[in-house]
Order: sequence, then structure tokens, then C-alpha cells
Amino acid sequence: MAAEIDEQPGVLQRLLDDGARAIARVRAAVDEFDPAFVSLAARGTSDHAALYGKYLVEVRRQLPAALVSPSTLTIYGARPDLRRTLFIAVSQSGTSPDLLGSVRAARECGALTIAVTNAPDSELAGAAHHSIDIDAGPELAVAATKTYTAELMALFLLLDGDIESARLVPAAAANTLLHRDRVAEAAARYRFAQQLVTTARGYSYATAREAALKLMETSYLAALAFSGADLLHGPLAVVDADVPVIAITTPGIGAESLAQVLERLVGAGADVLRVGDDAGLPVDVHGVPEHLAPIVEILPLQQLAWRLALDRGGDPDRPRGLTKVTQTW
Amino acid sequence: MAAEIDEQPGVLQRLLDDGARAIARVRAAVDEFDPAFVSLAARGTSDHAALYGKYLVEVRRQLPAALVSPSTLTIYGARPDLRRTLFIAVSQSGTSPDLLGSVRAARECGALTIAVTNAPDSELAGAAHHSIDIDAGPELAVAATKTYTAELMALFLLLDGDIESARLVPAAAANTLLHRDRVAEAAARYRFAQQLVTTARGYSYATAREAALKLMETSYLAALAFSGADLLHGPLAVVDADVPVIAITTPGIGAESLAQVLERLVGAGADVLRVGDDAGLPVDVHGVPEHLAPIVEILPLQQLAWRLALDRGGDPDRPRGLTKVTQTW
Repeated sequence: MAAEIDEQPGVLQRLLDDGARAIARVRAAVDEFDPAFVSLAARGTSDHAALYGKYLVEVRRQLPAALVSPSTLTIYGARPDLRRTLFIAVSQSGTSPDLLGSVRAARECGALTIAVTNAPDSELAGAAHHSIDIDAGPELAVAATKTYTAELMALFLLLDGDIESARLVPAAAANTLLHRDRVAEAAARYRFAQQLVTTARGYSYATAREAALKLMETSYLAALAFSGADLLHGPLAVVDADVPVIAITTPGIGAESLAQVLERLVGAGADVLRVGDDAGLPVDVHGVPEHLAPIVEILPLQQLAWRLALDRGGDPDRPRGLTKVTQTW
Repeated sequence: MAAEIDEQPGVLQRLLDDGARAIARVRAAVDEFDPAFVSLAARGTSDHAALYGKYLVEVRRQLPAALVSPSTLTIYGARPDLRRTLFIAVSQSGTSPDLLGSVRAARECGALTIAVTNAPDSELAGAAHHSIDIDAGPELAVAATKTYTAELMALFLLLDGDIESARLVPAAAANTLLHRDRVAEAAARYRFAQQLVTTARGYSYATAREAALKLMETSYLAALAFSGADLLHGPLAVVDADVPVIAITTPGIGAESLAQVLERLVGAGADVLRVGDDAGLPVDVHGVPEHLAPIVEILPLQQLAWRLALDRGGDPDRPRGLTKVTQTW
């Protein structure tokens, strides 16, 4: 897991150098299809990449977007009219039967289908009209890291395409990965925590969700992720001085809007660790715009999950109860 | 909270007797508009009603549906083309500024807008093309109960409209509420639990989410809700003999599909309490079809949240850190 975390600047650079052209061709096919609506289907870590994609579609492409409940197309057998729908499935392994079933159903219903995978020869990649290879190399750790950031970059290149901004990301990622001392301090702080809340707004909400999942997978923390707005609608009751909060505050509209939530949390006596520019867990954004920041800001949180698992006597490479490829129907 | 829980059969009956006709008129307006796509916007408990609505739209109306991220329309200022979109905002109080902002933005972008609220004179109700009054009466407890089930029923009448099936719900609800002894047993079992996982698939996933929120709000449990499929993709690592699981297994396609997940959980030594027909927490379904069962199956879980809060020495009517009406921007 540690090695794969460190590979990320290189993986992102490779995707920009070798993959961007192929992705631009798929983007041209999307433009020609002219979708009225975008559906994204994924599970687990890839579902957080899909969540990032949803914000890109809604804000950058100005289209309504949905995270699909694959079960409606598979076990419930719904056959909606999708002739104006772009349907994107995101999966590291490309083997999940319910994603495969939902891509086949969406294609049958008229959608333009795209599979974003790390397995260009997978059944999922073959089932979609277009396949995007995130080219992250074999990922051996159960907890996905480099395939997550590569999925984010692939979705950005597909849905936005501003390659000049994207080119700022690998260096920002490399710099951000250098703050190991700060990660170690944060891990020490959470050594005996049993619960933890992550929060963010906007694009960074995907980061909050993915960080919670990493902490659950590797350190068995009960990590709850909330959008800053939803946190005020109920879950705030669980946050007191004993439940630490990690807030994603990389500069931008989302972080500005989160400020009032953080005030409430601090007022309630919560222990808040910020992730961002000049924060407890530093993110070297260096000109990377807010809509690309999720690719960088997850890195110290991946490092934290790894480090905390070790500090707690666990093995981050072999979390209990999990296997790398999950088959769900 | 206890009184409001017990009012639910009456509230549901009133909505069927006095509200169904007005909702049918809104449904006719929806049919005339002929949406290609449905967006639902909500926060907190109402967001779980919206999640139930999403399954209804996808499976029963065979249309793609999305849970909107209100921030994209408000703080990020997106202005998508919504001329074929039905936009439904769900809010007990009808006062949340970000929902109001998103309804105004959606209307400006061409959507047909509907507000589902317990406050027909609210600004939100006034801002939408059509307003549906769930008519649940004043809800004083911070933890929403009767407004949740009334929102589910209103969404069912709006999006499906099978009034004959809906008429089975109030009696099923009344019978289900009688199993106080079983609720007390379950509360005793969780007296010292710090974490808890809820899981379901399909329509009941909304129940799992809402149950987790109720337990968080009233008993400060770190309650994590997962769809059965997502649970296998990572969070399974947190489930061991020390983390109890509540599984919603009211008969239907969702429960059948959850069976493999429950086998894995039991195999991993998890303590699983089932909610459903002939289960640890009984639900008297009595012919209520799967797509209406969420209105009934949440009831014992509301009772559990209330009872557990009392057993732990808390006050379920006054959860710490929360107010009844939450203002988020």
C-alpha cells in the first residue's frame, strides 16, 4: 500500500502523457452524442471517483447527473429510456457482475456507455461502447489508492479536458506526499480513537467519503463521512470532544462554505484536523484549481490510513475480511 | 418523540383520506410535463425519503433519477438545462436556504418543481410550481419520525399512485408498533455498543440510512449505513464480533439479494439483528408490497432509537447539539 501511494505522481503523469489523447477521442464521441443527462455507476472506492465525476458533470458540464443504484437495473430489472443518457461505469478490476449487468442494461436502453477501468481486457471494458484505461499498473494492496486518483484524473480528462490545469497535478501530488512527519503526528493523535467523522463540501466531499473508507478498511475505525450541510442535520449529535473530525479545506468555494460548519464544530468542543493549504495535514495545491484538488488532497489521508493501521498493530496490506476483487450481484 | 412515533398510523391514514386527491392532481401535472429525468433534493431525514423516491422513479416509473447535490446549484452556481427534468424538493420545515435556492435555480433552468413539505405556507412551498402538504401536524421532537413516513407516503402517491396498496399501510403500521417488548430486548442488547452497522438493498436501503441517522441523533452511536453491495467493498473490515449489524430483510427482491451478504457477515462472526417478517424486530407487512414496505419497516427502528436513548440515560427529545430546523447554505 505504501509503495502504491508513492507511485501516484508517476501514474498521473503517465496518464497525462500516454492516455490523454485516447481519452480526448472518447470525449469527442460524448460531445457528438450530446447527452442530456449523465449516470455514473460504481462501488466502493470507485463510487467516490464517480461522486467526483458527478460534481464535474453538474458544475463544469452544466448537466444533471446521477449516481446510479445498479440494483434498479439488475435485480429490479428496470428498463428506462436512456437514449439521451451518458452512462459511465467506474471499476478498478472491471469484473463486478452488477456493474457489468448495469452497463449491458443501460446500453440496451439506448445510453452511450463508457467503462473506466484499470483492466482494458475486462468484460466490463468490452461491454461498453468506449473503454478508458486508467493504466495505473497492477494494484496489489486491498485498499485502493493509485487506481482511485487515476480514476479521478481519467474522469477529469473525459468530462472537463482542461489538460493545462491537469498538468499541474503530478508535481503538486509529489510535493504533498513529502509531509510524512505531519502524517505521523496525525496518526499518533488518532492512535486510540474508535470513531471519526470526515466532512467537506462540494468537490472535496468525494475526498471525505474516500478518506473515511480508507480509515475503515485499514484501521477498522468507525469513520463517518458527511457533507458539511448534512452534518448539521442530525449527525452533529455524535460529534463531541471524544469524536475527532477531519475537515477537507483545500481553498475554494466548497471550503468557504464549510467554514460555518467548522465554527459550529469547534464551538461544540470538537477536535478538528484540517486538510488543505497551510493546514494540519498540508496539501501543496500550487495553483491546482478546486475542481482538480481532490486528486491531491486524498494523498495525506491515504498515508494517514496506512500509518494508523501500522501504529495500531494492523497490516494495511491485508485488512481482515476483505479481498481485492469484490463480486456483488 | 414517543408520541409522534405512535401518531404515524393516524397521520398516514389522514394523508390517504384527505391528501391523496390533491397529490393525484400534482401527479397529473407531472404526467403532462412528461419528464425525461427526475432530480430529488433534500437534507438529513428528508434525504432518506428522497432516496426512497429515487428507487420509485427508477423502478416504478422507469426513469433515470438523481439525488441532487444542492451545492452545485447554489454555491457553485451551475445553471443546467432542466427543461425535461422534474425537480422535487423534500423538507419538513420548508425553510432550508440551500433547498430554496436550488428550487429557484431549477425552476429558472426550466424544471417542473414540486415541494413536499409539512409547511404549506413555507417559502419553499411557495417557490415551487406545485406544493404537496404531508399534513403530519406539528413535529416537536428534534428527531423526525412522523414527517419521515408521511414524506414517504406522499412521494409514493406522487410517483406511483397505487392507492389500493397504499391503503394497506396504516394497519400494517399500527400492528408493527405493538412489538414494544421486542424493541426493548433489542435496546438492551445494544446498551453498551459504540458502533453499529445497518444494511439493506433496494427500497429498504433508505430504511437502513434513516435508522442509522436516528440512532446517531438520539443515542450518539456511530451508526454506519451501507447498501449490502457496498458493504462487501471495504467497510466489511469494520464488522467483527464487536460491531453489531442491523439488516433490513422485509420480504422482496432487495432482501433476497441481501441474503449472500448476511451469510458473509454471519460467517465473519457478526451479531446480526434482522428487521422484517418473522425477524428479531418484527414488521407486520400483511400484504404491503416491497415498494411500500419502507413506510412500515422504519417504525421499530424509530422505537429502538428512542428506547436506546432512554436506556443510556439520554433524552431522545433533546439530542445534544441539534435544533429542529437546520439552516444550511
